[in-house]
Amino acid sequence: RSGANDVFIKERIQEENVEFASAISGLLHQAGLVEKNLHYREELEKSLHELQIDQQAARQIQQNMLPENSVKLGSITAQYLLIPSLYLSGDFVDVIKVDEEKTLFYLADVSGHGASSALVTVLLKNMTNRLLRNFRRRSSFDILSPVDTLYRINTELLETGLGKHLSIFLGIIDTEKKQLRYAVGGHHPMPIITDSSGSRFLEGRGMPVGLFPEPMFDERKISLEDQYQITLFSDGILEMLNEGDMIAKEQRLVDAVVETKGEGPERVKDCLLPGIISEAPDDIAIMTICRQ
Amino acid sequence: RSGANDVFIKERIQEENVEFASAISGLLHQAGLVEKNLHYREELEKSLHELQIDQQAARQIQQNMLPENSVKLGSITAQYLLIPSLYLSGDFVDVIKVDEEKTLFYLADVSGHGASSALVTVLLKNMTNRLLRNFRRRSSFDILSPVDTLYRINTELLETGLGKHLSIFLGIIDTEKKQLRYAVGGHHPMPIITDSSGSRFLEGRGMPVGLFPEPMFDERKISLEDQYQITLFSDGILEMLNEGDMIAKEQRLVDAVVETKGEGPERVKDCLLPGIISEAPDDIAIMTICRQ
Repeated sequence: RSGANDVFIKERIQEENVEFASAISGLLHQAGLVEKNLHYREELEKSLHELQIDQQAARQIQQNMLPENSVKLGSITAQYLLIPSLYLSGDFVDVIKVDEEKTLFYLADVSGHGASSALVTVLLKNMTNRLLRNFRRRSSFDILSPVDTLYRINTELLETGLGKHLSIFLGIIDTEKKQLRYAVGGHHPMPIITDSSGSRFLEGRGMPVGLFPEPMFDERKISLEDQYQITLFSDGILEMLNEGDMIAKEQRLVDAVVETKGEGPERVKDCLLPGIISEAPDDIAIMTICRQ
Repeated sequence: RSGANDVFIKERIQEENVEFASAISGLLHQAGLVEKNLHYREELEKSLHELQIDQQAARQIQQNMLPENSVKLGSITAQYLLIPSLYLSGDFVDVIKVDEEKTLFYLADVSGHGASSALVTVLLKNMTNRLLRNFRRRSSFDILSPVDTLYRINTELLETGLGKHLSIFLGIIDTEKKQLRYAVGGHHPMPIITDSSGSRFLEGRGMPVGLFPEPMFDERKISLEDQYQITLFSDGILEMLNEGDMIAKEQRLVDAVVETKGEGPERVKDCLLPGIISEAPDDIAIMTICRQ
């Protein structure tokens, strides 16, 4: 005898055959349920696996559009960190050398997250490629104007009819003029600039891109020192901070930038959110643009 | 006594307490497994649900880019049917009124299927929007040249660096000139044209779009009668047909077009694949362009 299931005393089976039969049928029923469950579980696993394979493939495709995690363009180093809340990201960054002196960079955050938002990132990548191509063959100079670039993204996003909008910070650094020109399309938190006078938020605001036919964007210009760092965040980071109000959260960002002294976005993230992030409610992107 | 599990004769428990304990511990272990399984199943269900919600949202976004299933542009009626093999489709169609006389239409089939291929469809939609806008403000007339349009898609697809290519049939009908001009980018099967002389495949071939820096595309021109139908398919339909070789499969397509006499893509599909398709190995698209 190995377990309680086996104990039916032989000589009693004769007199208790109804009970015996119902006990056996009960066991068979249980076994049936176990098998049904197993089948259901296998179906679940199969569907999940199929969707995961699909999303992983798409993630690879999205990866192909992103720049290297660390890019050196002349005297400027751009680094970024992107943690999608699901497989695909609605946060997107790019860094583009426009000409010898000018470097364009942006951090965009498409409304929502996952596959639906990732669809819009293709549009962004395609747009800046095109503006650069037009600039090189001298057919359009829109790429030199951060605000014009936002207007174009706005128009095309509306025309494509995706029903998605985005927030974006887009800047152009001119190393010769020692100048940063930038446009803000509903982006928050604002990037932090660090130079000899410390770390502070850049100023400016603007409407989201792709929501209104005639939006207003803010274009600003600031002088740059010889050494500086610009640190950009998508708003996903704010949700992860425990501080109660926005002012305290923003202070945390500045503190993290000060504390990590130009050591790149990975360190900034570790300072803000120690430990590995396996689940975040929204995509998180951090980018640093550095001249040293 | 209700089942075999309860049968441990009290007076024996004293002498057989080790066995009794092991029987109980076996049952507890089983109960533990059941609970673990249940937890695992719940985790599976949760992950699957999350991905399904994500894909469903993206599907809605993709839907926003597609035209109405039936569009009437002047004397031309365009109808299409799109059955994705997963939530998102790598097959894509569009119909655009270029001016009073000219209607552009295309059916594209991005390599692979699902989310990764859907990313490319955004590029297609954006591209034709842009070509139309440029044409209307007279800054580019590429939209009037099917082959130039394919070259542009090729260039931008390569530049965007997605690592995906596509096959496409793109045509422009000029109702005044009674003419169809079209370009073929690696598309197969070719569309079927039906007029007073019967139903037959259009001629032409070409390289896939987005694979080579300098591809060759075939542009052709044919005269149209007053009444005609052009029936386009993506290659997903071929995999679903039982016929052994390609010639027999292609004949099936022609037969289906003949049999359904301009009743639209839904009927063509029913004729080829009777019953509801819940699973297909590849996306299936059928489009009919009709003048009656």
